[in-house]
Amino acid sequence: MTAKRASKKYVYFYGISKKYTEGGMQDRAVLGGKGANLAEMANAGLPVPPGFTISTEACAYYSKHDHKYPPGLLDQVKKQLAKLEKHMGKKFGDPQNPLLVSVRSGAAASMPGMMDTVLNLGLNDKSIHGFIKQTGNERTGWDCYRRFIDMFGDVVMGPSTGLSHEHFENELERIKKKYGAKEDTHLTASQWKEVVAAYKKVYQKKVKKSFPQDPMEQLDCCIRAVFGSWDAPRAVKYRQINKITGLLGTAVNVCTMVFGNMGEDSGTGVAFTRDGSTGQAKPMGEYLVDAQGEDVVAGIRTPKDLHKMPKEPNPVWKRAYDELYKIMRQLERHYKYPQDVEFTVERGKLWMLQTRNAKRTGIAGVRWAVEMANGKDIVTGKSEDKILTQKAALMSLTGSDLEQLLFPIFDLAAEKKAEVLCTGLPAGPGAAVGQIVFSSHEAEKIVKGDPRAKVILVRHETSPEDVGGMWAAQGILTTTGGMTSHAAVVARGWGKCCICGASALKIDYQKGTVSANGVLLKEGDWISLNGTQGVTYIGELPTQSSPVVDAIVNRDKKAMKHHFYKMYAQVSQWSDQYRKIKVRTNADTPKDALAARAFGAEGIGLTRTEHMFFEGDRIWAIREFILADSKSDREKALAKLLPFQRKDFEGIFTAMKGLPVTIRLLDPPLHEFVPHSQSDQEEMANRLGVPKEFVSTRVQQLREFNPMLGHRGCRLSITFPELCVMQTTAIIEAACNVEKRKKVKAIPEIMIPLVGSRTEFDYLEKIVRRVADKIIKERKSKVKYLVGTMIEIPRAAITADEIAERAEFFSFGTNDLTQLTYGFSRDDIGTFLPDYLNEKILPVDPFQSVDVSGVGQLIEMGVQRGRDTRPDLKCGICGEHGGDPASVKFCARTGLDYVSCSPFRVPIARLSAAQAVIKGSE
Amino acid sequence: MTAKRASKKYVYFYGISKKYTEGGMQDRAVLGGKGANLAEMANAGLPVPPGFTISTEACAYYSKHDHKYPPGLLDQVKKQLAKLEKHMGKKFGDPQNPLLVSVRSGAAASMPGMMDTVLNLGLNDKSIHGFIKQTGNERTGWDCYRRFIDMFGDVVMGPSTGLSHEHFENELERIKKKYGAKEDTHLTASQWKEVVAAYKKVYQKKVKKSFPQDPMEQLDCCIRAVFGSWDAPRAVKYRQINKITGLLGTAVNVCTMVFGNMGEDSGTGVAFTRDGSTGQAKPMGEYLVDAQGEDVVAGIRTPKDLHKMPKEPNPVWKRAYDELYKIMRQLERHYKYPQDVEFTVERGKLWMLQTRNAKRTGIAGVRWAVEMANGKDIVTGKSEDKILTQKAALMSLTGSDLEQLLFPIFDLAAEKKAEVLCTGLPAGPGAAVGQIVFSSHEAEKIVKGDPRAKVILVRHETSPEDVGGMWAAQGILTTTGGMTSHAAVVARGWGKCCICGASALKIDYQKGTVSANGVLLKEGDWISLNGTQGVTYIGELPTQSSPVVDAIVNRDKKAMKHHFYKMYAQVSQWSDQYRKIKVRTNADTPKDALAARAFGAEGIGLTRTEHMFFEGDRIWAIREFILADSKSDREKALAKLLPFQRKDFEGIFTAMKGLPVTIRLLDPPLHEFVPHSQSDQEEMANRLGVPKEFVSTRVQQLREFNPMLGHRGCRLSITFPELCVMQTTAIIEAACNVEKRKKVKAIPEIMIPLVGSRTEFDYLEKIVRRVADKIIKERKSKVKYLVGTMIEIPRAAITADEIAERAEFFSFGTNDLTQLTYGFSRDDIGTFLPDYLNEKILPVDPFQSVDVSGVGQLIEMGVQRGRDTRPDLKCGICGEHGGDPASVKFCARTGLDYVSCSPFRVPIARLSAAQAVIKGSE
Repeated sequence: MTAKRASKKYVYFYGISKKYTEGGMQDRAVLGGKGANLAEMANAGLPVPPGFTISTEACAYYSKHDHKYPPGLLDQVKKQLAKLEKHMGKKFGDPQNPLLVSVRSGAAASMPGMMDTVLNLGLNDKSIHGFIKQTGNERTGWDCYRRFIDMFGDVVMGPSTGLSHEHFENELERIKKKYGAKEDTHLTASQWKEVVAAYKKVYQKKVKKSFPQDPMEQLDCCIRAVFGSWDAPRAVKYRQINKITGLLGTAVNVCTMVFGNMGEDSGTGVAFTRDGSTGQAKPMGEYLVDAQGEDVVAGIRTPKDLHKMPKEPNPVWKRAYDELYKIMRQLERHYKYPQDVEFTVERGKLWMLQTRNAKRTGIAGVRWAVEMANGKDIVTGKSEDKILTQKAALMSLTGSDLEQLLFPIFDLAAEKKAEVLCTGLPAGPGAAVGQIVFSSHEAEKIVKGDPRAKVILVRHETSPEDVGGMWAAQGILTTTGGMTSHAAVVARGWGKCCICGASALKIDYQKGTVSANGVLLKEGDWISLNGTQGVTYIGELPTQSSPVVDAIVNRDKKAMKHHFYKMYAQVSQWSDQYRKIKVRTNADTPKDALAARAFGAEGIGLTRTEHMFFEGDRIWAIREFILADSKSDREKALAKLLPFQRKDFEGIFTAMKGLPVTIRLLDPPLHEFVPHSQSDQEEMANRLGVPKEFVSTRVQQLREFNPMLGHRGCRLSITFPELCVMQTTAIIEAACNVEKRKKVKAIPEIMIPLVGSRTEFDYLEKIVRRVADKIIKERKSKVKYLVGTMIEIPRAAITADEIAERAEFFSFGTNDLTQLTYGFSRDDIGTFLPDYLNEKILPVDPFQSVDVSGVGQLIEMGVQRGRDTRPDLKCGICGEHGGDPASVKFCARTGLDYVSCSPFRVPIARLSAAQAVIKGSE
Repeated sequence: MTAKRASKKYVYFYGISKKYTEGGMQDRAVLGGKGANLAEMANAGLPVPPGFTISTEACAYYSKHDHKYPPGLLDQVKKQLAKLEKHMGKKFGDPQNPLLVSVRSGAAASMPGMMDTVLNLGLNDKSIHGFIKQTGNERTGWDCYRRFIDMFGDVVMGPSTGLSHEHFENELERIKKKYGAKEDTHLTASQWKEVVAAYKKVYQKKVKKSFPQDPMEQLDCCIRAVFGSWDAPRAVKYRQINKITGLLGTAVNVCTMVFGNMGEDSGTGVAFTRDGSTGQAKPMGEYLVDAQGEDVVAGIRTPKDLHKMPKEPNPVWKRAYDELYKIMRQLERHYKYPQDVEFTVERGKLWMLQTRNAKRTGIAGVRWAVEMANGKDIVTGKSEDKILTQKAALMSLTGSDLEQLLFPIFDLAAEKKAEVLCTGLPAGPGAAVGQIVFSSHEAEKIVKGDPRAKVILVRHETSPEDVGGMWAAQGILTTTGGMTSHAAVVARGWGKCCICGASALKIDYQKGTVSANGVLLKEGDWISLNGTQGVTYIGELPTQSSPVVDAIVNRDKKAMKHHFYKMYAQVSQWSDQYRKIKVRTNADTPKDALAARAFGAEGIGLTRTEHMFFEGDRIWAIREFILADSKSDREKALAKLLPFQRKDFEGIFTAMKGLPVTIRLLDPPLHEFVPHSQSDQEEMANRLGVPKEFVSTRVQQLREFNPMLGHRGCRLSITFPELCVMQTTAIIEAACNVEKRKKVKAIPEIMIPLVGSRTEFDYLEKIVRRVADKIIKERKSKVKYLVGTMIEIPRAAITADEIAERAEFFSFGTNDLTQLTYGFSRDDIGTFLPDYLNEKILPVDPFQSVDVSGVGQLIEMGVQRGRDTRPDLKCGICGEHGGDPASVKFCARTGLDYVSCSPFRVPIARLSAAQAVIKGSE
């Protein structure tokens, strides 16, 4: 019953020409990235040294079957080797005309920690003579042989025997010393021969076997070593950390050797088709004459700038340069992405050893995308190839690429050298530098005293009481809290740099010190925050501001001519061309509203009225409200707040000039407005003229076990309808005033938060309409307003059909919805989130990117059931997710009318919205 | 175009015979309760004084149309009046032979606060003479007239003029004094006549009009007064408080007067067909000879026991008694419910004035149901009518009826006289008496010293640290927390009396005092709790224990013969006959498990392992675990807990003898296990041999903003898998031991709590199976176990299809599910729940009865999606809702396999489950 079957194909040939090459770019999963690209270059007729690739499937088999090759593998390898011998006219291990190969690992994803390259495989005590004949250079011959023994011993046999490069290097040093040679190049051919003999002894001693002379045995060992390295602890760990999943294993590339160390007409180098740092459309790279690849890496000799190649004395270099240039342009057009290539020139002939998508910064990414689609250098205006469509250009970008244009950044070189104090969550992108302060009060005081003072607010956590100090500070650094903690949300809203959850940091408020990593800093010491990466540095790093923000927010004329601004504008314009979902902003002040409009916001999706309660003396009115124990006293306190709120709303309506403004009624629990320290409570008692115990009792009463699930949102207005009356009055009066005095149309959308049932909504909607309609009628105004709700309670999504009977719009509050759907408190998730991400129990922090399969179902349910009742129901999202690209795409798919995010994320949301459409149309 | 249409029928005749009677019992909505029952009695041929009913629809019209009668109403009234005159042979207002009527309000639901009765309507200065002629008694005549003026003035004109009974009473007193009459009965006919004249003057003075002489005007005023009282503030308020909705208005019953004050052959009385207090199947009631109905109520004369009627000197009474007896039995059979009747004997003729379902205690309800269905007196064994089917008997009961059999109760008379200290939520039913203590520690100490000591634990709230003291106490009284707070849940689980959220109570722990309602009590003072009503009394009330519990839990032989036990057993047996859904129990100890089995539990639906961690020295092991900072130290601490847990599980498996036992892995956040006071932390540091700061820092680290949404449930075991390993080991080793040593089959169902995604479940399920299978294999045991999860996170319900791929059972944890679906913290809801219930924003506390339209949808979704994946998925519910009748019915409808509730609610769940089936089949 064991009928012999044709064994599965595991080995794929590449090189010579398209005719002989098996596979290409599309076969990454099976051939690995390196193998697929080699095949692809061969298909394109580029000069690739021929070879073959052993597939990742063979590795998977090996790994699963107790380190056994799949049946037939060695036969297939031998067959391909024979093909290679035939094409190259050389023979593996041949004493006269030997074929030498390199062996490299290469999985589908780039993965450091896998096996290093082995060069010059096929050399032995016999073939070395043939090789010397081929090269005509005895010295080079022995040098290559000793390199092969070194690499083979270190890389292939090292892991199991402890043999390492160092053992060989000691021998080399000994012999160099013996002959008084300072540099390797000073050794003669016979001295290199002596080195080879010494290396073989070292090998014999450590491995307890003599260095293998059979090339097939050499190759077999190499293949096993590559396969084995896939399961090595450091590779497993790397894949875990970098969340690389779904790969079969690594491929093995066996490639005909070409030699850059054949003299002045030979050499080797690396090149990028464009600048990966600035994005400039100019190839860059470096090369060495008469050298093998590893010499460039080793840094023994200083490589020359790529563009010096044509000026080399040997004329072959001019030709090689022109050909390389042509090939690079061809590769870019072919891959539609700038490339990072390795090449070797052997006796004047250019060989391409590798190509891959180039690494880049976000800024380079944006510039590449814009220029490759426009066919024009954005700085010089010079024409170049149009390589990308606009759609493809947009799809090549990520939100954080664009983000890099919007925030101040550190000088890269300075940052590289800086000393790290601690790391945390990258809660608010950008760079910030300042002196440490530990209290908001202090921060405000310092900046009031000297408006040019730069401080960084360092705290365990922040609360609404801290907003003044947060605003005054350049950046915020906290030890607890996650990406959606108070500090993070407020900072992002302002485009302010912020690092949260830097748990290694120990603050001693009493002593005014902070320590981490054995470093102790005190109040007033300088630190620098990289909020994009979440890294805090000791000292004051040089920063540069964002020309885009200077141009947009500060209307700086010079900045508007900066190519960063042009790049931003181009990407935004293209985005708007494709996207369908609207982008609104979360803004609580006229200033934020103006900035967001400039960034392209098409309305306000969320105005949090509570932030208005903290400024200046207002806090005392709300505290008075909280202490009052009769409705009339509460109304008296609220009457003091009314003019402030009305003025705020007037400012916002004016800034938004006829765009809709969604205003959320008071949401947070009342205890956020009262002080919790003994002394502050005393001050409150004095100021409001009540006994101290009265304040402390009330504060105690307001304490809740789970404030997130407590007396907040619409529950406040149901208990104290006068609150809803005051806020509605402020909103509608402001709208009437703005329309009348400034002739600006105001479109208020009044949003009732935390609704869980239609009865809650109906109860408050009645109050809102009664108050609003009365004002509008009295003032003979034509203001039109909507009344809607946030869908942030699971029950609201489930009963959306009922709620939509009266609600005119839904705004999904995905922060709370995520908290409740998962039962996670965003303030407490820090204790177990790392474990959850490590163990892949969560694919991603659900507060950063909408959990499509859970929370997403509730959103879909809410939209669908809501529109079943009210087909024209306006639906949006206003949680922190509104600025997350993946979440924006989900929202677009789900048919929401808009997403709303903080002003600085509006450009990102616009891009993501366009990407959603483009992806959908593909 | 205003074609005259026949006006709608608003007035319905009743009496004489079925032929003349319009409507019956089924017309409650239109005729009101009183009118419908009068018609019903007339239809049954019972002697009802004829009359007519003006419908509730007329009232609704009146109320909506600015106090205007609907068109044609007065004509219809006149027509019916003429019919009445014809049948009675009397004429309205006739000076010779006047027809007198009574006017009564009567809505479809009983509603105190509506207009009182007006008797003797139709009397005026002329008809009084005819009336005297009819009665042959001048004194009675004038007495009736003055009563009419009094009632008309007070009830009909009072609300608009301020005229009240008191004004008339003053005149009466004046005249009685004038003639030296001590009692009303001492006044002569002419003196009564003088009273009438004086009353008319009082009337004239207050109303500014003379007393109306036209009977139609009298009637018209009465009807308007009844209609008007429907909208009176006190009636509106009453309907609001009692949540009476959907009624049109009140009906008006106009009824021929019959007179019990016609001499020794006349009289009046009230009777119950059975005893509403004990339930005994014997009519009871009282009567007065020569009296009108109001005399019985007024308490001027002491009524006689009903059963004395046959012994009255006048022989008409024997006949009337026999007839009444017959009618009462007829009414009970007719209404299939014991009745509360009013009757009058006029010159030897029995008239039935009213019948309605009798009010009763829970105990009476159960006895009625059992006896009416068995046709046998449960105490005497005497046969009686079989009035009900078993199904109907079950449907006539509520859970709280049955509950009254299970808990100690106060002596009713003593309770009536007791002084109330405060009221709170009825969190744990029953009665408890004891001396106040303010700490659990103290409670334990006292009871240890004297096991017969009775203490009541009085605290702001309780925490798991308090369980020892709670167990020692007779009852628990807290000032905060709702029906599902810690105190409530634990107390109910034990069948212990508990009152929560008594917010008026002020505790001063320092001084050892508690005050409310101006009363100050100190430690050691006696109080009495009625946990069924939520009332706390000052002092020591006499209680009686429940024979049912004595019989079931304590196996008391005498109690087993008590008819309470027989009643309970009968209801339970019938329930089991009909119900389909199984009933399990929540039990954490062998003792609870045994009790629950005795109550009929068919397994354990929830064993909370955390309660086991508090007993004795175990708390120190778990604290050691919490302080440990390496896995191996944690494992060491857990190793100390293992034998305790194993022993607990052995006890529970043994108690449940082969019934399934669902065990939940550790659920609460770790900070519940550490002390929070400075001194306790010091003790902990000393005991565990670590620095004090170490403890306080760890406690600080464990603090969470929203513990309900924090690091708990399966999240603990994901962070500390060793916890899951220890608990699984304890469970499976216990099961193996029990099977081997005791030959008792153990069926553990291991439940992973707080799962929100399949990845969480899969992660822990793997650990559980690995550990369990290893033990079973090593021991060569045949123990079978299941691994399942609680569905208590909305996301789990939504993604139930995924979770069911590995989970073998679902248990809906409706407490947490309700918290998250609504976003309500059950510990904090107290601040706004009262407003929500008042304003009908919530129909009922969702922690008491499952919110069918929100949480219910998630449960249905969970069951359906789960069974789509795994058709044989076992589904149950184990929240506090498992004992709530409405929730049990919902669970049965939704196709759950079982409900699980605290031991003392098992009988209620069995009844409710039967009711669900019976209701479904109707």
